[in-house]
Formats: sequence, C-alpha cells, structure tokens
Amino acid sequence: MSHPFLSDAAVGFLPSPVRDVWELSMQPGMVSLAGGNPDLRLNDLGWMEEAAARAIAERGPEVLQYGAGTGLAGLHEAIVEVMAAEGVHAAPESIQVTAGSQLALDLLTKLLFARGDTVLAEAPTYVGALGVFGGAGVVVEHVGMDDDGLRPDALREQIDRLAALGRRPRALYTVPNFHNPTGISLAAERRPEIVEICRQAGIPIIEDNPYGQLAFGEHRVPSLHSFDPELVIYLGSFSKIMAPGLRVGWASAPAWLRRPLQLASESAVICPSVLSQELARAFVARGGWRETVAGAAAEYGRRAEALQSTLLPLLPAGAALTAPRGGFFSWLTLPEGWSSAGLLDDAVDQRVVFVPGASFYADGSGERQFRLAYSLEAPERLEEGALRLGRALDAYAGTLEPAGL
Amino acid sequence: MSHPFLSDAAVGFLPSPVRDVWELSMQPGMVSLAGGNPDLRLNDLGWMEEAAARAIAERGPEVLQYGAGTGLAGLHEAIVEVMAAEGVHAAPESIQVTAGSQLALDLLTKLLFARGDTVLAEAPTYVGALGVFGGAGVVVEHVGMDDDGLRPDALREQIDRLAALGRRPRALYTVPNFHNPTGISLAAERRPEIVEICRQAGIPIIEDNPYGQLAFGEHRVPSLHSFDPELVIYLGSFSKIMAPGLRVGWASAPAWLRRPLQLASESAVICPSVLSQELARAFVARGGWRETVAGAAAEYGRRAEALQSTLLPLLPAGAALTAPRGGFFSWLTLPEGWSSAGLLDDAVDQRVVFVPGASFYADGSGERQFRLAYSLEAPERLEEGALRLGRALDAYAGTLEPAGL
Repeated sequence: MSHPFLSDAAVGFLPSPVRDVWELSMQPGMVSLAGGNPDLRLNDLGWMEEAAARAIAERGPEVLQYGAGTGLAGLHEAIVEVMAAEGVHAAPESIQVTAGSQLALDLLTKLLFARGDTVLAEAPTYVGALGVFGGAGVVVEHVGMDDDGLRPDALREQIDRLAALGRRPRALYTVPNFHNPTGISLAAERRPEIVEICRQAGIPIIEDNPYGQLAFGEHRVPSLHSFDPELVIYLGSFSKIMAPGLRVGWASAPAWLRRPLQLASESAVICPSVLSQELARAFVARGGWRETVAGAAAEYGRRAEALQSTLLPLLPAGAALTAPRGGFFSWLTLPEGWSSAGLLDDAVDQRVVFVPGASFYADGSGERQFRLAYSLEAPERLEEGALRLGRALDAYAGTLEPAGL
Repeated sequence: MSHPFLSDAAVGFLPSPVRDVWELSMQPGMVSLAGGNPDLRLNDLGWMEEAAARAIAERGPEVLQYGAGTGLAGLHEAIVEVMAAEGVHAAPESIQVTAGSQLALDLLTKLLFARGDTVLAEAPTYVGALGVFGGAGVVVEHVGMDDDGLRPDALREQIDRLAALGRRPRALYTVPNFHNPTGISLAAERRPEIVEICRQAGIPIIEDNPYGQLAFGEHRVPSLHSFDPELVIYLGSFSKIMAPGLRVGWASAPAWLRRPLQLASESAVICPSVLSQELARAFVARGGWRETVAGAAAEYGRRAEALQSTLLPLLPAGAALTAPRGGFFSWLTLPEGWSSAGLLDDAVDQRVVFVPGASFYADGSGERQFRLAYSLEAPERLEEGALRLGRALDAYAGTLEPAGL
C-alpha cells in the first residue's frame, strides 16, 4: 500500500479482521460467530417506513438540507432520555451528534492526540478503535483485565511504567459495559477507582458504551462519566439499539471539548445525515423504545445462553469462556500452546467462523484467544455452531499430538 | 479553545464563516446572499417519500444494517452514470462512496499529507477545504486565478518558488467548475496544461466538482481527471443536485489510492448512511434526474442574472463582479481601500448579508472581496437584495470620504 503520493499515515489504516472473515461468513451453510451486527428483526423497525415518508413529506426542506453542526434540533433531548434510561445524566448542550460513534472516536483522536502520543486501552480492545488509533499514529498501550473488567492495579502500573519512560498517556479508551470483544463488564466498585486514578494522572477517559442498554437482566452500574463529567467523554450509539445503517451516534462532552468537537465534526462531515437523525429522534419520541430494546436484549440473552450451554461441555481442559450478561460477545481462551488462527482453518472445515484474537490487540498477542458473536444467529443455529466448533476443537487438538507417539 | 487535554491540532479547527453569518441570515426580513445551499424546491424530491418507505419495507435488513466499506451495491454504477452525464468517464471499481464529499476531502488529507506539508489551492478557495487542511496542520499556498480560472503561469511560479525553499506540495486542490467562492470555471484550454505541470512536478490533483452539473447553458469542458486518471482524484456529490441532508458524496480514485481510501473511510465511519445511499441510488435509477437537474440549473441561471443585472449598475467605479455560467456563487471585488468586513455592517443595516472574502484565503487576504450566493432566494428577492446592497455600498462609501472635506 506504499506509493510516493501517500503519506506515512496511509499505511496505518489496516483492514478490519471482521471484514476479512465476512466473506467466509457469507458462504452458504456457514454459521457465523464473527460479525457484531445487531439482529434488526428484534428491533421492530416497521414504524420507520411511515416515519421516513412523513419526515420527507412534512419536513423535507429540513431533513434533506444541510443541518446544524451539533445535530438536529430535538435529537439532543432524545439522546439525553436514552442515556437517562441507563442512569447516565447529561445536559442536552453536552451532546454532539456524530455520523456514528465511530466518527466520534475519529474526531476525539484528532482533538486529543498528536502522532506518537499514547492511549491506554483494555487488553483486548475494540478493533475499530485500534484502526482509528493506528491511522493517526497513536500508540496503544494495553491495560490488563480480568472477569471484573479493567484492573485498577494494572492501570496504575501501566501509568507508572510509562511515566518512568517519560510518556504520559493522553487518554484511556475503555468499553466498560459488555465489552467488545470479551463481553465482560467493569465491576461497579472499580469504577470510581478507575476514574480517580485517571484524574490524579491527568488522563481523560473515553467511555465507549454502545452495548450498555443490552443487559440480559438487572444491570445497574454507575457510568464512569457520573464520577467526573469534566474528565470523562461518553460515547453512545443508536447502532445496536435501533439501526446501524443510519449511522447516528453521539458524544456527551465535557465543556472544554464541546466547541472543538463541533468544529471538528463540521470539518469532517458538515453534519451527520439529517434524515437519519430525524429517524433516531422519532425512535425515541414515539415511545416504547425501552420495551423494544429490553425485548431484544432478552433474546440476545437466550442466544448467549444457547451458545454457552452447548459449547462449555465441549471445551478442552485449560480453556476458558467468558459469561457475558449483556451485549453481543463472549471470548474464548484456548489452552497454552493452542492457536486461534490455526483453529479457524478447522472451524471453516466444519462450517463455522469466528474472529481470531490477535486482531483485538495492538501488540500481536491474543494468539490463543478468539471472539464469538451470538447476536445475529437464532439459538438453534448457535447450538449447531457450538457443536461444529466442538468438532473443530477436536480436529485441531488432533493436529497438536506429538508426531509418532 | 486551549486546554491541557487538547492536542495542538485542536486549535486548527476554525468556525465556518458561513455558519457565523447564518444567525444574521435567519433574522426576519433579511435577504441572505450568504449560504451555499441548494434550493430543494427545485430538486423535486416528492418521489423520495415513497422510495424511502419502500426501501425500508422491502430492503430494511440491508439499508438499516451496516453496509459495505466502499458503498452500497449498485450505487457505484449510478455514480458512474452521473459522472458520464458531464463527460467524465470512470470505472465503478474506482468509486469510493463517502459520507458527503467533505469526508472524502478529510480522508484524502489523512492519506496524502503529514502535518506541516503543503497543499496548493486557488486564491480564493473553498472555505471547507481550508478547515480540513487547517485541522490537519497542512499549509495552504495559494495560486492566482483570473476570469479563466487557475493560472498555469502562477501555478508554475508557485511550484518553483516552493521548490527553491525545499518544499514540494503534496497535492493541488482545485474546484475547476463554477468555483466556490468565485463562480469562475477553468478554461478548457488550460486544463491539459495544469495537469501536465502537476504531472511533471509529481503533484497529485484533487479535482472537487460539486457544481459541474449546474451549468446554466452549454458547458462542455474536459475534466482534469480525463487527462490523467492516475494523477487526478475526482470528488463528486449528490448534495447540490439532489439533497445535502443525506450526506452522500464520492471519490473516483486512482488505483494506488483505492484500498487506502476504503480503509480510511471504514476507520472513520464504518460506512456512510446506507439508507441515504439507497436514496441516492434510486435518484439515478428511477430516471429523469438529468431533466430535473437541468431545470434547477436553468432557475439558478435566472437567479444569477437577476442579481447581476440589478447589482452591476449600482457598483462603484473600480469594483468588479464575476459573471458565473453555473453553480451558486458570484464574487465581488471592491475598489482599492474598501473593506468587505466593513461593508457587511452597512449591509446588515440594509437587511442583506454575504460572506466577507478573508474567509476564503489561508493568508488573510481578500479583505476587499466577498461572496454572493444566489442559490436559495427567488429572483425578485435577489433583485431586492441587490438594491439593498447598492444602498449599503453608498452608505459605506460615505464613511470613506475624507473627514472635514
């Protein structure tokens, strides 16, 4: 991808591993545990046919014209309502609507980092964040996590280690709820501690929360944002609870960030699709969205359970599978010496695909881990996928036997 | 806008002067010659009510879900048809659909420039390009233009001058058709010369063409792209011919740029709004779009003529007004010693607004120039605006009389 006209930065943009596996997952008969797409059949979007037609008929000159830089009038309040449903409190004037929360991350990367700067992120982390950071020449330093999420002791250690090298991270990027790719949530009692560590070290936090609404059961944890709204930049999205194809997300930004974020968004896209914004506004304004989302979350829970209960008995000794209580993903760690990239070949032979773990690390680790998405297939298909994965594990294990013994 | 958490880059994002004048232009009774918005009443968008409803009903799982990285299937061919209507020939596989052509410019800036690199651009140039370049720390060096557009001799001189300083521009950014802000088009005979100068100097060209379809009469000029599709990156948009609120634009990229551009777009927004893309596709596929666009262009021509014919007799000696043959803008140069920022105060007193010229230069020049947009007001309102502007010119001229004489 090198060419004399391309900047050094151009080589930093890497293909998404999810896109890479996509072709495989489209093969007939394949059970895909790869993509992190919401199942739109659960999101009940029939109302949108009429809403879109009405928006164009009645408000065409507004929803088809250039829109306001911070977002469509009325959408900020709707977003505040969505956040409040999770117990997150923000003022409408803190909200910058973005063309997907992915763009919010891109804009924040421009505004917080110079090339060569450092960002902290969970180990593993969202592959799309790695892509943005890589493209901007921002160095990702991972922070260890366990079943309760990001480890405060590991965060402190990493900050101290970097400080000894003269490096101060410019931000912590974290997905605290139903984390992508592991499905793990950050324990409530760790949250104020994480914020306090960052506050003392002068490190702002990017709290990326696309999955928080998709709890399978009770999930009342405080947002990181609630402990210090001037330190924590909160990202939300309509992609998982409504429709990713509209590309509407948002940032709730501290006061010091609002004006730069608006100007950076205007510079990048002028405004997000106004028709999309109007549909997101209507999604909230028409009411009933919480029930729809709760119904979808319950179904995702059934899917997670179908995958878990079938797969767990088939795992080899030394393997570990996370038990998510919300979101789209679980995370499988293979025994020492196994390779998830190697296993993928056997899995494809068995007609099941997943995303190997190395994609979720900046440092190439994760070789014996992989992500399983259960969001898009029905429970019986997930059970079938788990059975196939079990056969793939057996086949792969066979190749590991010492030759000739 | 400085804060310890913000990067140095954050101060490079500047407010759009068009947004600044926007508040003024919204005052009741104001004639706005400020914004460059298309008049959607001319774009005949009633068909879109049904098209949007049908897309959601029949193709909901596609248009509401994450979409392909290079754009919606079928849209590339539709874009090729749009380009062909202007005599520009491109292959579907060269097309990267973007969330507005503004984002294409942002992505190109990431891919072609490092901070401190140089870009060439007309003097004056599109203010949104100045915003993107400024945010990325790219230094804009202007190239003089006259009534036939960018001057080849000035381009050669600027390249030589910079070379003597050890600086090689990384690209030329140009709006060759009905240029924003001047309305001027690059003469046909200059086009191969411009491309050849850049080719010899190893400078790729960004040919930004949002207005080319909006010729008032015959306008058959070759694109820069046609002379060297491996050197010229062509940007197009549905914003002016269809609906800016959808945010759909594109780049037709040389082979060396396609993969990096796709990855950079995926990194920034995953994909553009898929529903928006489907409506853009339908706009072309349903047929009749050329007639609609031609009808709109003819009306814009009547508006340009209404503004011109009323304003010209009211101009002071030494003033000059460009005579656009397409697009949305004309450009007024005041006599020596006059200030367009100063005139704006008198104009607002007379209830008419425009965008002062300094906004369209990176170097603060343009103080006696300003942009007049005629796209959004009816002819009789434009005549009224011209009369008001004439009175403002008189009032402003009065303040310039030497005191006490």
